[in-house]
Amino acid sequence: MSTAGGDLYAVIMAGGSGTRFWPASRVRRPKQLLPIGIDEPLIVRTSTRLADMIPPERQFVITSARYVGAVRELLPDVPPMQVVGEPVGRDTAPCIGLAGRLVGTLDPDATVVAMPSDHVIGAEELFREHIGVAREALAARPDAILVFGIEPDRPATGYGYLRQGAVLGEFGGRRVYRLDAFVEKPDESRAREMLAAGGHFWNAGLFAFRPRALAAAYAAHLPAMGPRLDRIARAWRGDEFEQILTAEFPSMQSISIDYGVMEKADQALLLPLPIRWDDVGSWAALERLAGAGDDGNVTEGDTLVLSGTGNIVSARDGLVAVKGVDDLIVVHTPDATLVCRRDDAEGVKQIVEALRERGLERYL
Amino acid sequence: MSTAGGDLYAVIMAGGSGTRFWPASRVRRPKQLLPIGIDEPLIVRTSTRLADMIPPERQFVITSARYVGAVRELLPDVPPMQVVGEPVGRDTAPCIGLAGRLVGTLDPDATVVAMPSDHVIGAEELFREHIGVAREALAARPDAILVFGIEPDRPATGYGYLRQGAVLGEFGGRRVYRLDAFVEKPDESRAREMLAAGGHFWNAGLFAFRPRALAAAYAAHLPAMGPRLDRIARAWRGDEFEQILTAEFPSMQSISIDYGVMEKADQALLLPLPIRWDDVGSWAALERLAGAGDDGNVTEGDTLVLSGTGNIVSARDGLVAVKGVDDLIVVHTPDATLVCRRDDAEGVKQIVEALRERGLERYL
Repeated sequence: MSTAGGDLYAVIMAGGSGTRFWPASRVRRPKQLLPIGIDEPLIVRTSTRLADMIPPERQFVITSARYVGAVRELLPDVPPMQVVGEPVGRDTAPCIGLAGRLVGTLDPDATVVAMPSDHVIGAEELFREHIGVAREALAARPDAILVFGIEPDRPATGYGYLRQGAVLGEFGGRRVYRLDAFVEKPDESRAREMLAAGGHFWNAGLFAFRPRALAAAYAAHLPAMGPRLDRIARAWRGDEFEQILTAEFPSMQSISIDYGVMEKADQALLLPLPIRWDDVGSWAALERLAGAGDDGNVTEGDTLVLSGTGNIVSARDGLVAVKGVDDLIVVHTPDATLVCRRDDAEGVKQIVEALRERGLERYL
Repeated sequence: MSTAGGDLYAVIMAGGSGTRFWPASRVRRPKQLLPIGIDEPLIVRTSTRLADMIPPERQFVITSARYVGAVRELLPDVPPMQVVGEPVGRDTAPCIGLAGRLVGTLDPDATVVAMPSDHVIGAEELFREHIGVAREALAARPDAILVFGIEPDRPATGYGYLRQGAVLGEFGGRRVYRLDAFVEKPDESRAREMLAAGGHFWNAGLFAFRPRALAAAYAAHLPAMGPRLDRIARAWRGDEFEQILTAEFPSMQSISIDYGVMEKADQALLLPLPIRWDDVGSWAALERLAGAGDDGNVTEGDTLVLSGTGNIVSARDGLVAVKGVDDLIVVHTPDATLVCRRDDAEGVKQIVEALRERGLERYL
């Protein structure tokens, strides 16, 4: 394993503010810190899912500064200095760039896997197997950046897609491709075309790379970002880290790694993941994760649905009693209740915006 | 005013357990102790509505034993001994019978007005004027029992009706009739007929009588009840009152004064009340009491209705946010939320029953 170089490291991206799960999620308690559709906080599941392969000592969490304390409490085995709080959100390029730099200071030959903190993955063993595949592929192509692509099981319009290019080779029995292109979130007919054509995968924001390769790609495509990342990384674990982070981070360009780096990179690889995956993007995800009961309703907590079907009913600290309504989302929390139509994908977001406009931020 | 005899006394009947306003009303906090559609608890409004004419010192409250403490707190000017707790509910005949006996021990020539604690009356001055009319009628017919009848403004099917008989005479410029009959809750077509025919009034459970006349009527029509009421009344304000009340009250027949006494009484009078009245019988009453906003929704508390109309939305200690639904009742309390159709009159009752069956009484 000489070319495989150093250890595997994980970077868990946990910066989201998660208004789409209001009123369960709040500004102070975003989605990734909550149990949604599973019985433990999403970020805890993300960490434990990796632990057999990448123990907590080799996990990093990049989150918002305001969630650092909560994350450290939820993940006590992750070294506190490896939970880093962004002073402001700047999309994924600065986040992953910083994490790559920090891992590189520990082990320049590491293989780093970066992923969101708030997704649910079905076959966890198969997922870990594919991390091994990615590592082998990067041992063969150490200058590449690899993106995992989820094999779609429906013509979803809510995700970006990845289009596969030529076969690079087979690693651990799995084919790895060159990445041909990112495809923006499609409309329904375009999504159906891609599903029928094959060779298109959902972009789940899952990457693997070696720190040196990442640094080289940033130097080439985001040249202003590299020196700032260097200054932050050099200060890490020192007394001036917070001060330098706060000075440098907000000045970086807000851009995703997809468009800032991957799309321009010479060596971008694609590894298909044949697993059930969910981005837990809205209350509607509860049906996929928790499943509907015999009466066609999805419930969690103390609930009573006397008649009606197709409802998603969540009682968090309390009870929801529903009778005679169909296809609604009803969420109770002690200080706020949400009722909207299940097919109204933007409903929760619009409610959150309206609450802000009307001076009801205290409920956000 | 020699024939008018003693003072006016009020008897406020406050025994209901009020599940129809669940989850705002609870076993421990029934409807009459809550503000529903108005800005103070219903029983407080009932007491203050009378106060100009019948001061608290001459008000009695007959409630359930478990609410005595709460009623005394809400009505601090009513003498504590005049707030009496029934050990079990036995409908209106024992309740009014007991109150009549108690007033009689203070003033055998009193005129007593008995009424529910949890109704809302529009023209309060006009209401008091009619109490004066009732007093005059009873001065002329001291052996009669008078029932007030609300002039109907719609063919309501949720109330019993009172049919007027011959004119007895005019008192204070208002006509008083003999009561011809009680009419059970009608179906819609029968209700329309009565509204068209005139001479029919809603039975709001509002009575006036003199203690002696009431005692005579009970002696004639509920002969087993009188001696028990006497034993309780003799013990009133003594050390053994609670003990005797607890021994005697549960043994009395559970029957309404309407069917137990009034229907058989020789001298039953009817005084029409030309006022807006509401029994606050269900969440739907909120529209009549509070009125709908420009968007056609009735709201109370911190609410946001982004689209949709015809909803009744109540946030008690918290917020309700609703989008894209019509004609629903949505009620939030810190530990329980209700969602049902507005036209589902039995919905709340069925939910309460189902919660009991499923071992979720802790939310009742």
